[in-house]
Amino acid sequence: MNAINFKIEKKLSGTLARAGQLVTPHGVILTPSFVPVGTKATVKAMTPLQLKSLGAQVVLSNTYHLYLQPGDELIKEAGGLHKFMNWDGPMMTDSGGFQVFSLGAAYGKEISKLISVTDPSLLIPERSSVDDGIPRLATIGNDGVSFRSHIDGSLHYITPEKSIEIQHNLGADIIFAFDECTSPTENLRYQEDALSRTHSWAKRSLEEHKKREDKKVSEVQPLIGFEGCTSETFPQALFGIVQGGRSEELRKKSAEIIKDINIDGKYFDGFGIGGSFAKEDMSTAVKWVNEILPEDKPRHLLGIGEPEDLFMGVENGVDLFDCVAATRIARNGTFYTKNGKINILNAKFVKDFTPIESDCICETCTSYTRAYLSHLFRAKEMLGGTLASIHNVYFINKLVSDMRKSILEDNFFEFKKEFLYKYEK
Amino acid sequence: MNAINFKIEKKLSGTLARAGQLVTPHGVILTPSFVPVGTKATVKAMTPLQLKSLGAQVVLSNTYHLYLQPGDELIKEAGGLHKFMNWDGPMMTDSGGFQVFSLGAAYGKEISKLISVTDPSLLIPERSSVDDGIPRLATIGNDGVSFRSHIDGSLHYITPEKSIEIQHNLGADIIFAFDECTSPTENLRYQEDALSRTHSWAKRSLEEHKKREDKKVSEVQPLIGFEGCTSETFPQALFGIVQGGRSEELRKKSAEIIKDINIDGKYFDGFGIGGSFAKEDMSTAVKWVNEILPEDKPRHLLGIGEPEDLFMGVENGVDLFDCVAATRIARNGTFYTKNGKINILNAKFVKDFTPIESDCICETCTSYTRAYLSHLFRAKEMLGGTLASIHNVYFINKLVSDMRKSILEDNFFEFKKEFLYKYEK
Repeated sequence: MNAINFKIEKKLSGTLARAGQLVTPHGVILTPSFVPVGTKATVKAMTPLQLKSLGAQVVLSNTYHLYLQPGDELIKEAGGLHKFMNWDGPMMTDSGGFQVFSLGAAYGKEISKLISVTDPSLLIPERSSVDDGIPRLATIGNDGVSFRSHIDGSLHYITPEKSIEIQHNLGADIIFAFDECTSPTENLRYQEDALSRTHSWAKRSLEEHKKREDKKVSEVQPLIGFEGCTSETFPQALFGIVQGGRSEELRKKSAEIIKDINIDGKYFDGFGIGGSFAKEDMSTAVKWVNEILPEDKPRHLLGIGEPEDLFMGVENGVDLFDCVAATRIARNGTFYTKNGKINILNAKFVKDFTPIESDCICETCTSYTRAYLSHLFRAKEMLGGTLASIHNVYFINKLVSDMRKSILEDNFFEFKKEFLYKYEK
Repeated sequence: MNAINFKIEKKLSGTLARAGQLVTPHGVILTPSFVPVGTKATVKAMTPLQLKSLGAQVVLSNTYHLYLQPGDELIKEAGGLHKFMNWDGPMMTDSGGFQVFSLGAAYGKEISKLISVTDPSLLIPERSSVDDGIPRLATIGNDGVSFRSHIDGSLHYITPEKSIEIQHNLGADIIFAFDECTSPTENLRYQEDALSRTHSWAKRSLEEHKKREDKKVSEVQPLIGFEGCTSETFPQALFGIVQGGRSEELRKKSAEIIKDINIDGKYFDGFGIGGSFAKEDMSTAVKWVNEILPEDKPRHLLGIGEPEDLFMGVENGVDLFDCVAATRIARNGTFYTKNGKINILNAKFVKDFTPIESDCICETCTSYTRAYLSHLFRAKEMLGGTLASIHNVYFINKLVSDMRKSILEDNFFEFKKEFLYKYEK
């Protein structure tokens, strides 16, 4: 039994772009699709009911955060993450690799998705991979990663096997292999070392996953006409992650290796493209990789979600994107509009009695003015963050859904040109 | 044209309790009814859509807060408070009198609804009514009150006329006369002085209100079949406020005076019962007052909303209650249950996979476990405050609605006994 099925509906000739359908045990994802992030088992500032009304098809939660709080064992006991957080649609969890990177090599640097730690005594004194004298919260070895919790300073050790165990406890439809994310500033020698760790961890992840999936199937009591699948025992899909930094050679090598990894004929169900990117490298890196990855499996560009990057990804064959930006900037009063981002705290919005976007049909734009939203943010009312998150998630969902439509209708480039002309003006 | 109409459906014999219907330009309120508080033009942590789904029939906003931020003129320009905050149901605003009390005599004391001010330089150096050497943010004179904004320290002066002007700019269906709220700890001499100010301010409030209502009616272009009322020009009802502290003599005197105040035959449309109460005084004070107030007009007990107080108020003839407690305690993780309040941060809830109340049909109880709510509050996720507010507002709405039902079905005392037995155990 496949955990997921992926069908390409249409390919855009001359590009890697495609529109498809990804069938999971909890529903179908029409691709390309944006995946809102629910880091700690909640997409911040909104209920799952609100999220669904915005066209969100799937949610991604963070393994690292949930492992530390409230703990994957507790979530397993609760009946899995779907039930725990009341999201009955498709769900993903990442592998924790990015957070390890945040605590390790990236720690203290200006790289996105950094975790802030206020107590310096929590730092692990050993030297990390990067020899700049800054103590890190994580130490990477070939077997796994030791790190300190950013919450209480407790010491933890995560291996590929442990990451998969956690993700099986959480029970998302799609999970990811444990990987080492590297900074684009690392030297080639370090990138090579890290990449070979990522490949060895990918294999170990798949091995552990297969073992657990095989056991799951054997545990299920087959029922006639029910195909042997209960809500507790649905199959999970595992995506392998391609790394390789900004090096063409390493990216291509990684794609080749990850696509071929198999345990007794069981391959990855799809692929993640990881890395902390320098913006200018991203499109080439994605293209190198997607030209090699098998066409018939879904590809997820990890942690990327600004409008211009979404067009780049889709054009280069990406099917899924997750990103915290839409909700994070929302909580600071920043709204996406078709004419670029605006911050509602700007004085000019205080008496602006028009909606954020007059042609937007989200709950925020159909019910509230910029003046009211400005008031909420100035008065530090929680509803401000909620209404901004509602608009931004709707905006990004709609944008990716419009890209899908433009692929199906063969006018992707016209749509892209028109959108970015206004957005970047 | 009456601004509101009030019809008593049933009186509970031997008591002052009654069930009724209060018709306002924005809909009918079935009484007794709880009024959630949307201090700054939002019931904290929820959308109006969510609020409606909890059975909330009416919302009360605070004149003092909206006058300072974003300003009543701005809200008028936005088309009024209903439109500004997207609440199309019945709406009330208070007079600002309680906040003046908070900034004045009550300042620095342990009395509910205090406004906290962190910058002591904002304090007005003049002595307030209470001679305890603590500088206050407000100074009360016979003509009105001068006070400093708790936001930016700017100096303001509010008179009864100004309070009514602000409340007409805001445009709620039901507004309140400007009053002076006193502390139960004040001496009788001060209570008498304050009460005569409240009565003189009540008359001035009604005078200003009548002038504005008369002007409103003359401005309306009568349309055939439309009764001359547009959404911008609907009539507003004015409630007078009875004060008098813990003194039986003053309470009764105040009720007599307030009920009889009229300007050319125009009386108050209903009544508020104000004061910062000592708990044991409340039921007698409410009874003294409601035995005197005309039976055919609605009565609102200001700022009271704990379950035991709601029973007391209903039994003694109160129709409406507003209170911030339901949402305020929610944001600290405290939930009402039929067995008393619980705080979800208590360790015993970490692995409790049952809902807050198994027989509650609110969105929170039907979708989430105590373990999940515990996780949200421990992880400091905004959704925690939202889900707790949803349950608590539903709980209190339902409780008052059940009291109404018990009056209609003649079993109020059985219901009260049964509820409080479990609740207070």
